[in-house]
Amino acid sequence: MKIFILGGGGMIGQKLAKSINLGALGGVKEHNVVLFDVAFQNDVIGSLQNRICNVSEAGQMEAIARERPDLIFHLASVVSGQAETDFDLGWNVNFHPTWRLLETLKREHLASSCTYRPRLIFTSSIAVFGGPYPELITDEFLSAPQTSYGAQKSICEALIGDFSRKGFIDGISMRLPTICVRPGKANLAASSFFSSIIREPLNGTDAILPVSDTVRHWHASPKSAVNFLIHASLLDLTRLGTRRAINLPGISCTVAEQIEALRSIAGQDAVNRIKISKNAEIEKIVEGWPRNFQPNRSLELGFVAEKSFSEIITVYIDEDYKKL
Amino acid sequence: MKIFILGGGGMIGQKLAKSINLGALGGVKEHNVVLFDVAFQNDVIGSLQNRICNVSEAGQMEAIARERPDLIFHLASVVSGQAETDFDLGWNVNFHPTWRLLETLKREHLASSCTYRPRLIFTSSIAVFGGPYPELITDEFLSAPQTSYGAQKSICEALIGDFSRKGFIDGISMRLPTICVRPGKANLAASSFFSSIIREPLNGTDAILPVSDTVRHWHASPKSAVNFLIHASLLDLTRLGTRRAINLPGISCTVAEQIEALRSIAGQDAVNRIKISKNAEIEKIVEGWPRNFQPNRSLELGFVAEKSFSEIITVYIDEDYKKL
Repeated sequence: MKIFILGGGGMIGQKLAKSINLGALGGVKEHNVVLFDVAFQNDVIGSLQNRICNVSEAGQMEAIARERPDLIFHLASVVSGQAETDFDLGWNVNFHPTWRLLETLKREHLASSCTYRPRLIFTSSIAVFGGPYPELITDEFLSAPQTSYGAQKSICEALIGDFSRKGFIDGISMRLPTICVRPGKANLAASSFFSSIIREPLNGTDAILPVSDTVRHWHASPKSAVNFLIHASLLDLTRLGTRRAINLPGISCTVAEQIEALRSIAGQDAVNRIKISKNAEIEKIVEGWPRNFQPNRSLELGFVAEKSFSEIITVYIDEDYKKL
Repeated sequence: MKIFILGGGGMIGQKLAKSINLGALGGVKEHNVVLFDVAFQNDVIGSLQNRICNVSEAGQMEAIARERPDLIFHLASVVSGQAETDFDLGWNVNFHPTWRLLETLKREHLASSCTYRPRLIFTSSIAVFGGPYPELITDEFLSAPQTSYGAQKSICEALIGDFSRKGFIDGISMRLPTICVRPGKANLAASSFFSSIIREPLNGTDAILPVSDTVRHWHASPKSAVNFLIHASLLDLTRLGTRRAINLPGISCTVAEQIEALRSIAGQDAVNRIKISKNAEIEKIVEGWPRNFQPNRSLELGFVAEKSFSEIITVYIDEDYKKL
């Protein structure tokens, strides 16, 4: 199978590629996997191909689609904080390329007498939601984004839904929880602190907490994110019915509960590494984010995440600790 | 005030223009109103300007935005049936021009040192919704369109929401009920029969009913549609909070109830003019449409519609009967 991972240089893209390379997709290790990104920090994984590619450049998405991949993971995106600061960049990366990809995939579908119909797995986000929220967000709750990033994800979902309904592609939009604990350095995502308040103390350095510890949020580990993507690759997507965007499972907890989990695993010294320094801009963005979900559809479809935040920390320690 | 009506040659655009010309906007009759459309069937109304314009042509939306209108009614659209049959046409008319309009309005806003910030009133549709539905659709129910038309409207809503949130424009997306009774001829909208089963019998000709009379739907008159648009022009849109798309008031009734209202007003002879001839394609589209709403937000904001389907028929008789 020809598998393209757009945004393959990112953290999730790399873990996904490794997982596929180990046979996660049906036990087959000999897939033709190509990773696309603006840069790669790591070496090529096994037999996988890396290609430098800026999805927002004219012609790139068209060229990708014309190669007729069987399976496309579309993870390429600038993060929420960046899309909020640089309006044009956000739309140019997070929206327009998706249109061009879909439009060209449709052309390939039609040119193939409708035999070519790739699976497209798109990483959307819970940033498609906006307050005021109910206590528990159900699968029927509206998308009303309060960031440009959320609006861009929401629009891509609608595109993927309609192109799938028409049979041009077989698509799914996966509204990932905030992925935590991210390895590596803090990034420009407004959600970056959710990871750094765990990761930095575990690694013996200080972390900044820019919001109140009463902030409640919705988390899953990078391992769960990869499992979601693999599961979506193998799923009969007609089971989604007419709604091709889904909320995924996760853990709802407050920052205080995150800190308690850290304390139970790494002790008070680790917790003392967390320094409070409020950031009004981040507080405002996070204020607009959802806190808790009842994701019945994805649970029924067999998607699985962690059951506690301690489990999320354990995943980090197993997979990424000391690999900074 | 410089007022542009995109889609000004259509039924609602014409009625809106007449209403503005009669002083509906704050009692002022001397607004500089320009109507844009691919064609105009009627003469220019009073002092209003008609301009031939295909919004999907390159450069048209940009040129419109560069004239810096104070108020834009964006009604230009191909109808649901047409967008479903001709996929490319639907996206080229119902989506891409809106992006170009917003992008250029943003440039003008920035070029004016942020003093230019036009009001944009966009006619969306209840076609942004898709089943399965609750008994009553609340303001928190998700958009999950099952037609390309609905997807296009939903995406424009998200764009208008984000450009408004950023302060580039002051926008609102109005999810009109199905507008009934439409004067004139049947059009390519899948919803066209809701009007023709009333209009044709009143005018002594036969009408085709392509669906079961148990079909329940959500209606408002053309007069209400114009009132919605005028009300939105005068409203402080900050009252919408962070959600710039709203469900509007209407009447929920079955086709059988529509027919009963016709019988009560025009007698059994009129009802006998309705011939049943099922159309599977229309049935399928209509099956995906919503049936009943609880539009609390728009009611609180002072939007008003009819209270019964008989009232809707009376509006048609008052405004449009014998003006075929």
